[in-house]
Amino acid sequence: MKTEITSEEIKSFLRKDAFAAFVGIELVEAGNGRATACLPLRDHHRNGLGIVHGGAVFTLADLTFAAACNSHGRIAVAIHCSISYIKAAQGDFLRAEAREVSAGPKIGAYSIRVTDGSGEIVAVFEGLAYRKKESWRP
Amino acid sequence: MKTEITSEEIKSFLRKDAFAAFVGIELVEAGNGRATACLPLRDHHRNGLGIVHGGAVFTLADLTFAAACNSHGRIAVAIHCSISYIKAAQGDFLRAEAREVSAGPKIGAYSIRVTDGSGEIVAVFEGLAYRKKESWRP
Amino acid sequence: MKTEITSEEIKSFLRKDAFAAFVGIELVEAGNGRATACLPLRDHHRNGLGIVHGGAVFTLADLTFAAACNSHGRIAVAIHCSISYIKAAQGDFLRAEAREVSAGPKIGAYSIRVTDGSGEIVAVFEGLAYRKKESWRP
Amino acid sequence: MKTEITSEEIKSFLRKDAFAAFVGIELVEAGNGRATACLPLRDHHRNGLGIVHGGAVFTLADLTFAAACNSHGRIAVAIHCSISYIKAAQGDFLRAEAREVSAGPKIGAYSIRVTDGSGEIVAVFEGLAYRKKESWRP
Repeated sequence: MKTEITSEEIKSFLRKDAFAAFVGIELVEAGNGRATACLPLRDHHRNGLGIVHGGAVFTLADLTFAAACNSHGRIAVAIHCSISYIKAAQGDFLRAEAREVSAGPKIGAYSIRVTDGSGEIVAVFEGLAYRKKESWRP
Repeated sequence: MKTEITSEEIKSFLRKDAFAAFVGIELVEAGNGRATACLPLRDHHRNGLGIVHGGAVFTLADLTFAAACNSHGRIAVAIHCSISYIKAAQGDFLRAEAREVSAGPKIGAYSIRVTDGSGEIVAVFEGLAYRKKESWRP
Repeated sequence: MKTEITSEEIKSFLRKDAFAAFVGIELVEAGNGRATACLPLRDHHRNGLGIVHGGAVFTLADLTFAAACNSHGRIAVAIHCSISYIKAAQGDFLRAEAREVSAGPKIGAYSIRVTDGSGEIVAVFEGLAYRKKESWRP
Repeated sequence: MKTEITSEEIKSFLRKDAFAAFVGIELVEAGNGRATACLPLRDHHRNGLGIVHGGAVFTLADLTFAAACNSHGRIAVAIHCSISYIKAAQGDFLRAEAREVSAGPKIGAYSIRVTDGSGEIVAVFEGLAYRKKESWRP
């Protein structure tokens, strides 16, 4: 019950996330309420104005949020997410980092920051998750 | 300047949205602050728990928001979006409908509802856009 | 257990809300996932720019949300609220109307619209509540 | 035009905020995208369940946000705010700290953390402001 969950275990669990894989997101590491993921940018990540699509930025942040909120072993599902777009991304990849604001008995709150290749903040994402009693660990 | 913008014109503009096309979203119609889009669900839209991915639901709502907020001809870019997940989707497609809450001189506010194949609400999305002076019309 | 909860019962429960009373908010009616409240505007509701304070608009919407999400008898507490400010209020009162988007086993979602004396939308508020098992009814 | 704006100047500007004064909020300091405020808690700050009212927590965060986003001299008005409630406040005062996530040509983004007397996080608030060209300085 109290065995430490490793980054590899969380990555293995999130490898089943078909949509994140389809979009091209790579989970770099996760554990203890934190997670980092990145997205190498390709043409199909852009919108009609040629800038990185809000949905791609959101999905990257969302996977990082999922990794962080599931990092304690209990299944956690998103209730509410919000994203503020700060500037158009420069460079050829995006990076997202999630940190835990709080993990209460039922609700967890997470803050995710998305930066671009030049290290500047592209978006800020806040996620709330409902924490189930069940574990996702086999 | 005051020529009515047709649904075809908006659809043609949003056909350049590479990420929405990549995800498989179809814009059904748009005009006068409103828009409807749908997403036929496939295996790659699911997450590690086998339910439709929050990022896919978000991207569908986001495209519908983009169509609605650009429907007056002025370029509008997302500033902030929030999504509440109501229930896991049933059936094999999602549908999103956007309506305009307000379109002020600088800021537009939109409300998008995502329903599933059984007609039930899957998610509620709120979008705020910054309205530029320039038009996207050629 | 299934006795219909009356608007009077909900109003009586919310009369214990000291902050709403302090601000001057009046709950007009409530029941079955809906609620209406109003706020007669006075000088102390304004901010440094002379316009109605965002905190006053929020508190009005929040009380209406509380009435709506508690209207089924189960104690419901706010998890997350968001508010978009559409335009500065005109006239001498504000009115808020809440409607239920969904009431699931654990989470309820509500949408509140705040209008001013001229009937125009001042703000849009979205609230998520955690629904406890206990009832607030004596 | 480039004279440094002092904390005193910002406090003097926000002293005109009638609602914040009515609620009992004290701006402690502000400048360069940051601000700190506090709220000594009294009975009229509580809701029907006896816990500190969400509207009071919001209004404290909102004033701190206003001080931070106006700290550069340009008038900034709130477009969108969101608040996540983490836990019920303990002790007899609340403290809010705002920091600037970004200050672009038109839009500023701010993150505010509200803590209670025991130093624990009570709420997390995100604010977006529209930055006007005019200054509020006389």
